[in-house]
Amino acid sequence: MTGIDDLPIRDELRGKSPYGAPQLDVPVRLNTNENPYPLPEPLIERITERVREAARELNRYPDREAVELRTELARYLTRTGGYEVAPANVWAANGSNEIIQQLLQAFGGPGRTALGFEPSYSMHALIARGTGTGWISGLRNADFTIDVEAATAEIAARRPDVVFICSPNNPTGTAVDAGTVLALYEAAQAAKADTAGALVVIDEAYVEFSHRPSLLPLIEGRPNLVLSRTMSKAFGAAGLRLGYLAADPAVVDAVQLVRLPYHLSAVTQATALAALEHTDTLLGYVDELKAERDRLVEELCAIGYEVTDSDANFVQFGRFEDSHSAWQAILDHGVLVRDNGVPGWLRVTAGTPAENDAFLDAVRAIKKETPST
Amino acid sequence: MTGIDDLPIRDELRGKSPYGAPQLDVPVRLNTNENPYPLPEPLIERITERVREAARELNRYPDREAVELRTELARYLTRTGGYEVAPANVWAANGSNEIIQQLLQAFGGPGRTALGFEPSYSMHALIARGTGTGWISGLRNADFTIDVEAATAEIAARRPDVVFICSPNNPTGTAVDAGTVLALYEAAQAAKADTAGALVVIDEAYVEFSHRPSLLPLIEGRPNLVLSRTMSKAFGAAGLRLGYLAADPAVVDAVQLVRLPYHLSAVTQATALAALEHTDTLLGYVDELKAERDRLVEELCAIGYEVTDSDANFVQFGRFEDSHSAWQAILDHGVLVRDNGVPGWLRVTAGTPAENDAFLDAVRAIKKETPST
Repeated sequence: MTGIDDLPIRDELRGKSPYGAPQLDVPVRLNTNENPYPLPEPLIERITERVREAARELNRYPDREAVELRTELARYLTRTGGYEVAPANVWAANGSNEIIQQLLQAFGGPGRTALGFEPSYSMHALIARGTGTGWISGLRNADFTIDVEAATAEIAARRPDVVFICSPNNPTGTAVDAGTVLALYEAAQAAKADTAGALVVIDEAYVEFSHRPSLLPLIEGRPNLVLSRTMSKAFGAAGLRLGYLAADPAVVDAVQLVRLPYHLSAVTQATALAALEHTDTLLGYVDELKAERDRLVEELCAIGYEVTDSDANFVQFGRFEDSHSAWQAILDHGVLVRDNGVPGWLRVTAGTPAENDAFLDAVRAIKKETPST
Repeated sequence: MTGIDDLPIRDELRGKSPYGAPQLDVPVRLNTNENPYPLPEPLIERITERVREAARELNRYPDREAVELRTELARYLTRTGGYEVAPANVWAANGSNEIIQQLLQAFGGPGRTALGFEPSYSMHALIARGTGTGWISGLRNADFTIDVEAATAEIAARRPDVVFICSPNNPTGTAVDAGTVLALYEAAQAAKADTAGALVVIDEAYVEFSHRPSLLPLIEGRPNLVLSRTMSKAFGAAGLRLGYLAADPAVVDAVQLVRLPYHLSAVTQATALAALEHTDTLLGYVDELKAERDRLVEELCAIGYEVTDSDANFVQFGRFEDSHSAWQAILDHGVLVRDNGVPGWLRVTAGTPAENDAFLDAVRAIKKETPST
């Protein structure tokens, strides 16, 4: 039988495994930061209506520039982000992963580098690899915040072409304040002042769950600053794969040079538009999840765990001598959480109250069995 | 105002324009090889049912490996392709463009090259550029067939890592016989015998319209041979963006190293599954379009045009001293065809009988006005 290594694949892919959390059949799945609330019935009906309309023209290519969808995303950002954006500021793709891939194809790529502060969303580094962009692993403080002085020094020394700032950060939940972002932005521009500066990407996939407002207003007057967003979390639509960005219109023009033509299907556009009509209901679920996230933090502390401050719909908790054994012990209690490979820590998604109770029961039980540091 | 060139984009993108046919509001659009027949009403109903089910779990990530969809695609290929394939032989993505992108990320990329025989589907070269893969433009005979001797010599000399063979070829409509493919495959393996050979990709986007059978059986015992397909044309679902490949299971494993996780949305998977339930009806439309394609060839010849033999749902016709002026003259008659930049030639998609009549009236009229070579 032919194996991958018998094929003429790129050398750096040899021996690698595909990215992705284990998909296990477990009663309580709190491992991929999904929203636990199914879409409300009226929205499901609206999706079917919108998709029926789209299906009548499915023999035609979709709107290549997704103008209607970008208009509604701009409206949503303007309403919730504290800054007015137009459709020309917005671009959409199949998940924020594809947004990041397009950005790296246009602004990273062979001979260029991207820097992120780790631990962070591991797809940043993986998509960098997939686009031939060199990856620079920047560090965080022990409490997972970004050390502004160290970070700006590293940017000055390494001169990355792209800088990722994930806020709230996945998997730690840590938000980044505007002052830090601005300092990093200035450092990145200064380091690459001989060319046209560096692109700074703020990944706000979880921002709707944050105690802080979006950093959207920072794009004003900063053409090299990009905000990346998703409908997977706050909109409860992980299955939809709809990511988007907000930036200067020139960035939107630039990604169109590398996007695959007609990348966003008519059914995806129709479904996203239906969900955007139900924003208020969906943001109501976000409020419930924020309360549950806060409850998880409180209870985990009460049980005796350490918890990283969280602005997201998940909580990083620890510390474990052997986090993989702890992960397995929780799984043995029927609850799937995530081992992101951060030594000593695990990550749990805020689920429904009942799911969170099951999780808390499990970690209470293993507290007696599992040694912590 | 900031322009693209003020941004830190890659040098090779400066001054470029996005790919895509002009989208003009014209009564008769025969420019993008779309299927002119809307999906039948029972299929539209089935799509809405399937999407309603999918929407109930839209808060969850989609099946990352699209197992049900790949199972049904394998069934379709087995039934129509003259060779039995299993789900493990099949992979699906957002359009065959994404299939090609994934293949080039895994088997092309920086320091590697891909070769295609031009004129051909221009996205092969563009996606090569987008993935950092060097592009080698192989030539065709004056009648747009591939010269086996010249092609194998070029492969031996240039040693490409990836070879594209588009059959039927876009924009010329030319099919490639199995003997030619096998000769090129052997040449490509021999040229790269020191490594693990070269990947040969047969782009069969239009094969359902061909007089010849699919080249699917050739994948037997040839792990470096890949067939790329789409539901955009024969399935009348350009708006769905569903491309797929058939190959050795090792190739499917390899693309999973570079695919973005959860790249294929739950609504896309649901819609594609619904369409596959209606294969017979949709292939009925294909028969009608083949007859219309043959009528276009016949009538164009009768009017006095040259026509390239076509195995696709479009016809390349000419020759024009100035093909862009001819394109404009046809547009002035309310019919949009495609100027693919092949000097002397234009391409028309087989539309409905009425659309084709309008096109034929237009080209009859301009025959008197426009000088041909």
